[in-house]
Amino acid sequence: MRVALLTVGDEILAGDTVNTNAAWLAEQVTDRGVDVERITVVPDRTADIAEAIEAFRTRYDAVIVTGGIGPTHDDVTMDAVAAAFDVALVEDQAALDWLAEHREYAREDLADGTAAIPAGARMIPNREGVAPGCVLANVYVFPGVPAEMKAMFEAVADDFSGADRHVEVVHVDEPESALLDRIETLDERFEVTVGSYPGETVRIKLSGRDQDAVERATAWLRERVELADSV
Amino acid sequence: MRVALLTVGDEILAGDTVNTNAAWLAEQVTDRGVDVERITVVPDRTADIAEAIEAFRTRYDAVIVTGGIGPTHDDVTMDAVAAAFDVALVEDQAALDWLAEHREYAREDLADGTAAIPAGARMIPNREGVAPGCVLANVYVFPGVPAEMKAMFEAVADDFSGADRHVEVVHVDEPESALLDRIETLDERFEVTVGSYPGETVRIKLSGRDQDAVERATAWLRERVELADSV
Repeated sequence: MRVALLTVGDEILAGDTVNTNAAWLAEQVTDRGVDVERITVVPDRTADIAEAIEAFRTRYDAVIVTGGIGPTHDDVTMDAVAAAFDVALVEDQAALDWLAEHREYAREDLADGTAAIPAGARMIPNREGVAPGCVLANVYVFPGVPAEMKAMFEAVADDFSGADRHVEVVHVDEPESALLDRIETLDERFEVTVGSYPGETVRIKLSGRDQDAVERATAWLRERVELADSV
Repeated sequence: MRVALLTVGDEILAGDTVNTNAAWLAEQVTDRGVDVERITVVPDRTADIAEAIEAFRTRYDAVIVTGGIGPTHDDVTMDAVAAAFDVALVEDQAALDWLAEHREYAREDLADGTAAIPAGARMIPNREGVAPGCVLANVYVFPGVPAEMKAMFEAVADDFSGADRHVEVVHVDEPESALLDRIETLDERFEVTVGSYPGETVRIKLSGRDQDAVERATAWLRERVELADSV
């Protein structure tokens, strides 16, 4: 399963906020064996959001959109999803009922548009806030407030699954340039994906579907490098 | 001036690493009056990187690419830039000379490809590491290691400038939903861009090219909301 994450928010494009929502979602779905193929951040503009959703929803198995939902004028994500699917935005009775029952909101307490989702979408209730999320075909729409986003993802997490992936990390206390021969051999000899990430030590990450192959490759590498003190 | 940031890295797509490079660059160029229109993260795969560069380099005034440069097998960004411009990758004499002079590397100390950049590109020396960056037309290529990336950006920072933008932030101690009327009035009455970001308090961000308009709008708002204790 291959997914794209789409983050809506001027505040991230301006560098005011680090995109921790995407990092959290990426880790969650990766842990479930799903491959994240793209993370894209777009401004709070209907056309930009709609264009990205249109491109991603045919290209990937699922798209998770976060941010830009709610009642203020800069919350245009639901309009954009509706535009991408060429459907109308409609006030959702299930959302109104849920808010009345769980939050004791009367309809007149809610700003116009709070409960509006694209026609044909399934509402996802917001257990940590007000504005509902939704799923339309393979597009999931969550709020940008982290607690609300996380609770909503948990509610649909079972939709995201893939083959198990096994991961091992080896911390090496040699310069990356000195490790090239061994990394190349690893790549040739074992059915694993190898990534090397230099920092204070070099992190070599070995991953693959075949646990045995990952373990053999890791053992092979550990015998042939200067291991850093484990952190 | 409108730019896109392209981050190369499986480790970000897997949620192992938060994309702080993009946040740092976004803040730097925003402070210089430049609009960041996209932040995209792609895997360490030549075709994916090249496709994004091709799309962005015609659409935006500049593209800043970070990550995936260096001598290991998963460092394919320079290949991708060359592919996007349909030019060859060539060993750069200026890079070799710089490394010999500043780091006292002999050519045979360097792994194959360390000093390779796309034909026609201008080399940017790496003052904090080894692998050089480059500029080709409006595409800037920096390493993913934060200290190396930052030093390289500083070397070309003057290329990034736009009209001054004035920003004010008001922290409000009311629910966002209660503020809708005043946010709408702000949006209608003043030549400013208004963003509202709910959290423990609601952050209202007012920005625009006209300092006077931003200040008048901010004063107008401050008189009409419950201000949160300044943080």
